[in-house]
Amino acid sequence: MSSQTFELLILGSSSASPTSERNPSAQLLNIAERYFLIDCGEATQIQLRKFKAKFQAIDHIFITHLHGDHFFGLPGLLSSMHLLGRKQEITVYCPAELKEVMDLMNKVSDTHFNFTVKWVFTNNDKLNLIFEDDKVEVYSFPLKHRIYCTGFLFKEKPLPRKIDKFKLDKHNLSTADIPKLKNGNDVINKDGVLIKNSEVTIAAREAKSYAYCSDTIYYPEIIESIKGVDMLYHESTFLNDKKDRAEKTYHSTAEQAAQIAKAANVKQLLLGHFSARYGDLEQFIAEASPIFENCLLATDGKRITI
Amino acid sequence: MSSQTFELLILGSSSASPTSERNPSAQLLNIAERYFLIDCGEATQIQLRKFKAKFQAIDHIFITHLHGDHFFGLPGLLSSMHLLGRKQEITVYCPAELKEVMDLMNKVSDTHFNFTVKWVFTNNDKLNLIFEDDKVEVYSFPLKHRIYCTGFLFKEKPLPRKIDKFKLDKHNLSTADIPKLKNGNDVINKDGVLIKNSEVTIAAREAKSYAYCSDTIYYPEIIESIKGVDMLYHESTFLNDKKDRAEKTYHSTAEQAAQIAKAANVKQLLLGHFSARYGDLEQFIAEASPIFENCLLATDGKRITI
Repeated sequence: MSSQTFELLILGSSSASPTSERNPSAQLLNIAERYFLIDCGEATQIQLRKFKAKFQAIDHIFITHLHGDHFFGLPGLLSSMHLLGRKQEITVYCPAELKEVMDLMNKVSDTHFNFTVKWVFTNNDKLNLIFEDDKVEVYSFPLKHRIYCTGFLFKEKPLPRKIDKFKLDKHNLSTADIPKLKNGNDVINKDGVLIKNSEVTIAAREAKSYAYCSDTIYYPEIIESIKGVDMLYHESTFLNDKKDRAEKTYHSTAEQAAQIAKAANVKQLLLGHFSARYGDLEQFIAEASPIFENCLLATDGKRITI
Repeated sequence: MSSQTFELLILGSSSASPTSERNPSAQLLNIAERYFLIDCGEATQIQLRKFKAKFQAIDHIFITHLHGDHFFGLPGLLSSMHLLGRKQEITVYCPAELKEVMDLMNKVSDTHFNFTVKWVFTNNDKLNLIFEDDKVEVYSFPLKHRIYCTGFLFKEKPLPRKIDKFKLDKHNLSTADIPKLKNGNDVINKDGVLIKNSEVTIAAREAKSYAYCSDTIYYPEIIESIKGVDMLYHESTFLNDKKDRAEKTYHSTAEQAAQIAKAANVKQLLLGHFSARYGDLEQFIAEASPIFENCLLATDGKRITI
C-alpha cells in the first residue's frame, strides 16, 4: 500500500558546452517504476553508470530538440543497450529528423539493434498526449527556441484509494472486492450488506506532475500547459546580466524562469541548463527566489523526490 | 636545443561499451607541439577537460573507422570548439561517410561552424602518406575489421643536429651558419676556412614513431607498415580465453598483439581497447609479456613519453 515513486535524477545540468562539474542535459524520471529519460546529451550513458541508475529499465526516451547538447548521447546509449543484450522495445519521442540521424549512424557503422526502436514524432503545435498507461500520462507542448523544440509534461493518473486491511475482515469483505474499493466504489459484503467505500478506504495522496521546459526563450504561452505542476524544470541558461544574450539566443534568465513559475502557480521550480560561464550557481537562486521562493538547483547527480 | 616532445595521453581505453573506469577510444598525441587526436569516442571532450589537455590546440583528428566507440564524440567536440570561439581550420582524416554524418548533424541542429573542417578521406589499400609538415609525417594503413578500418603511423622527421654554441665562437662562425649546420652541412667560417660539420655539431636523438592499430583481427599484413616503431598501440579487446570470440568479432587477444609486436620488432607495446568484461587488466600484461616483454597498459589519463 506504500505510495508510488515519483523521483527525478539529474544526469546533466549544463547548457551547450559541458564543464568539469556539469554534463549536458539529461534527466531520469521514475514514476511508479516507469523510467523516463528526458534529453540525452553526450555521455548520458556514462552518467547513468556513475549514478548507478537502471540502464536497461529505460523504455521511453524524450528528446526536446536537436541541438547537440540534448541528443548527442543517444547513439551511444542505444548502442550500449544493444551490446549489453537488450531485446526489449524502446520508444523515442522526438523531432522527426532524429530518426534520420540514427538511421545514418547505424548504416555507417553497420549496426543492427536486437531490439525495436519505436519512433513517436512530436508536434509543437499544442499540448499533445504522447504516452499513456494505467498510471502515467505524458504530454508534449511547444517551447520557443531557435529551432523546433517541445517541452514535456509528466502526470500521474489519480492514485487508487488505500484500503484498511483490518476493516476488510471487520466488514466481512472478500479480497475480490479490493479492486472495486481501490477505484472508489461501494461493495456488497458476504452477508449481502452494502459497505460504503469511505468506511474501509482512505484517499491516496494527490497525483503529482512534473514539467520539463528546455530550451526556451521567456514564453508565457507555456503557462497554460504547466499550470499547478508539482515541479517545473525551467531552463535558466543565463542570469539577468545577460538578459540581452538570453533573448538573442532564445534562452531564459533565472528571473524569467521564476516569473513563469509564479504565473503558472507551480509548487516548486528547478533551475538548470546553466551556461558554462557561471561557476557559483547560488547566484541563480538569489535571482529567482525573490520572485518565486521555492526554487532549487539542478546539479549533476542530485536526486529529488517530487 | 632541448629535444622535441613526443608524448601520448590516453583519453579512453575501453572497447565498445564504456565502464566506470574506462571511456571509449581516444588518444592525444603531441609531437613537437602538433596535437593529433586519434579516435574520438563519446565524451572525448569531457576527458580532454578532465586531463587538462589543450582543447583548441588540436588541428588534426584521425578516425580509424565508424564504429560508434571511435567517433561518437566528434560532433560534440567540434560543437564545443565552435562554441568556445574557434576560428582555426581543423582537418579530419577519416572514412568518407563521416562527413555525411557531420553534415546531417549540423543540418538538423542548424549549426554553422565558424571554422573550416577540412576532410581528408582515408583509403585502406596500402600505406598512404596523409599528412606532412617540416617535423612530422602521418600515414594510414589498412587494418582488418568488420567494417572499413585503417591504422595510423606517426613519424618524426630526422631531427636537426645539435650545435655546440661554444664551438661556434671558437671556429669564428656566424649565426647565419646555424641552419646549414643543423642540416648536417659543412660551412666556411668568417676567415674563409672550411669547418667540418662534425667539429661543431652532435647528432640529435633518433626520430621516433608511433603506430596505432585499432580495431583489427590478428593481421600479420600490418607488420610491414609498423616495423621497428618506438611504440605500437595494438588493440587487445580480449584475452586468449575468448580467442574464438576475438576472431568472430574481428578483434585481437593480448597474445596476438604481442605476436605482432614481436614480429614487427617494435620497441614497446601498448595494449588497449579492453572489453568491459575484464576488471583486472594485469591479466593482459601476464598474457602478452612472455611473448613480448616490453608491454604496458593504456589506462585513461595515463601520459607516456615515447
